[in-house]
Amino acid sequence: MTDHSPLNPDYKIDVARSFAKQGMMETLNAELTEVSAGTVTITAPIGPQTSQQDGFAHAGLLWTVGDSAAGYATLSLMGAEERVLTVEMKINLLSPAVGDTITAVGRVIRFGRNLCTSAAEIYTHGPNGKKHVATMIGTTTRLRPDG
Amino acid sequence: MTDHSPLNPDYKIDVARSFAKQGMMETLNAELTEVSAGTVTITAPIGPQTSQQDGFAHAGLLWTVGDSAAGYATLSLMGAEERVLTVEMKINLLSPAVGDTITAVGRVIRFGRNLCTSAAEIYTHGPNGKKHVATMIGTTTRLRPDG
Amino acid sequence: MTDHSPLNPDYKIDVARSFAKQGMMETLNAELTEVSAGTVTITAPIGPQTSQQDGFAHAGLLWTVGDSAAGYATLSLMGAEERVLTVEMKINLLSPAVGDTITAVGRVIRFGRNLCTSAAEIYTHGPNGKKHVATMIGTTTRLRPDG
Amino acid sequence: MTDHSPLNPDYKIDVARSFAKQGMMETLNAELTEVSAGTVTITAPIGPQTSQQDGFAHAGLLWTVGDSAAGYATLSLMGAEERVLTVEMKINLLSPAVGDTITAVGRVIRFGRNLCTSAAEIYTHGPNGKKHVATMIGTTTRLRPDG
Repeated sequence: MTDHSPLNPDYKIDVARSFAKQGMMETLNAELTEVSAGTVTITAPIGPQTSQQDGFAHAGLLWTVGDSAAGYATLSLMGAEERVLTVEMKINLLSPAVGDTITAVGRVIRFGRNLCTSAAEIYTHGPNGKKHVATMIGTTTRLRPDG
Repeated sequence: MTDHSPLNPDYKIDVARSFAKQGMMETLNAELTEVSAGTVTITAPIGPQTSQQDGFAHAGLLWTVGDSAAGYATLSLMGAEERVLTVEMKINLLSPAVGDTITAVGRVIRFGRNLCTSAAEIYTHGPNGKKHVATMIGTTTRLRPDG
Repeated sequence: MTDHSPLNPDYKIDVARSFAKQGMMETLNAELTEVSAGTVTITAPIGPQTSQQDGFAHAGLLWTVGDSAAGYATLSLMGAEERVLTVEMKINLLSPAVGDTITAVGRVIRFGRNLCTSAAEIYTHGPNGKKHVATMIGTTTRLRPDG
Repeated sequence: MTDHSPLNPDYKIDVARSFAKQGMMETLNAELTEVSAGTVTITAPIGPQTSQQDGFAHAGLLWTVGDSAAGYATLSLMGAEERVLTVEMKINLLSPAVGDTITAVGRVIRFGRNLCTSAAEIYTHGPNGKKHVATMIGTTTRLRPDG
């Protein structure tokens, strides 16, 4: 985890504003549930709309929400005029995703001048409690207005 | 690309039947557009419902459709009673995904007794033609009824 | 981190015995410096023999030592007759590897019946202290004598 | 595969010069066997010095040689003053690496202004012919003298 301070004092507002523009998050009924400097949590329901063929949550639900969580964790540390873009992102699935909701907790591992490394842990929540179902790590890039 | 023959003579029907059970594919308005032994193509529209914050297609659209294409490419070679599960999957994004539709072309690289390696190439299609926007590779596992 | 107990009471001896058979570890002058259930540390010198073109440690030194650390972390939990094999492994490089030595700390994230997920963190050590230079995650498989 | 022309007319000489500085390649007895614009092949012997515990080539041999092949494929397209650095690199192992030698064939998938995507295929060669044993893909970055 980096110990960088956020460059943008309004990062909570700006992350929320950017999140609201992601049509994909609305399609998945995902909500931004926590934003702090370098860490972002997103929650989404598990249901038939996002299932795979055996009734589990499609891995794409996990990946998509985890990618946004990891990306916004990085954006939370950036300057106000910067944008974030995923370069590459990997997921290891630990267990079938069964339950009522998932949460994706994104965090920054390296906050570089141009390239950042961030990760996300995905959990399911349901009658049987909380379970760690996937882990993600990837590279994001900082895009500046002049860049 | 493997040269394995499909173990299941009805693989085209069975892949289509499994695809129809993926609620996520319906949510993304994705369609199964080609199934052959070891190769599967899925198409989906790009639109506000699946956008990220800058108006491009969310990488999660690409990953999700690519994961299904890579997984069904593997399922097309499996026995009739088997199921496929993604173990891990990686994406490298080559260009922002702009256009009208995406196609994900999945193919099998290794068809093992238990573990398989498959890949997917993601293309956008629009007024400016066809563009290669992402490449994916990952591991899937064959689940047998007794296993 | 899993909370599994090791299946093999002699796991420390058996991990050390297997490590001693890796010609690659000898070539890299790597040493097994700590073995506990689910966690293994390997240390190796940085020097001209393992450099890349700019004088840093070649990423291959980090990957190779990290892969062995992650693999032996998994082997430490397995039965006495089992073997471990890497299926896939990824590295994200956080900083150029400069210093006197590297340590790779491998740990098990998921210990499954057949498939396991393990990770490794790579650190450099030198006049400027300890630095986190790379993070790895991947899939390993358990091979049983009859399998 | 990109269709970019090399920016540096002396790229063959410069790739060979950089390769000669990699102490790691000498330690592995690796040789640069082919350099063309966007594609580089490296060959290395399989032997007890680079084995893992079961006598196969250590995956680290494959990864290390493949990383250099993918990196030099990218360097072959860069300007004379630029350097290449691996950001992240992934390997999927397809088969145990048995034989006399390995070859790693690196190629450029995307040659970007700052970030590139490159891949490598690893083959073994021996009494039983040529076998595809691993596939790699990753991200590299272009470092300019002023950067």
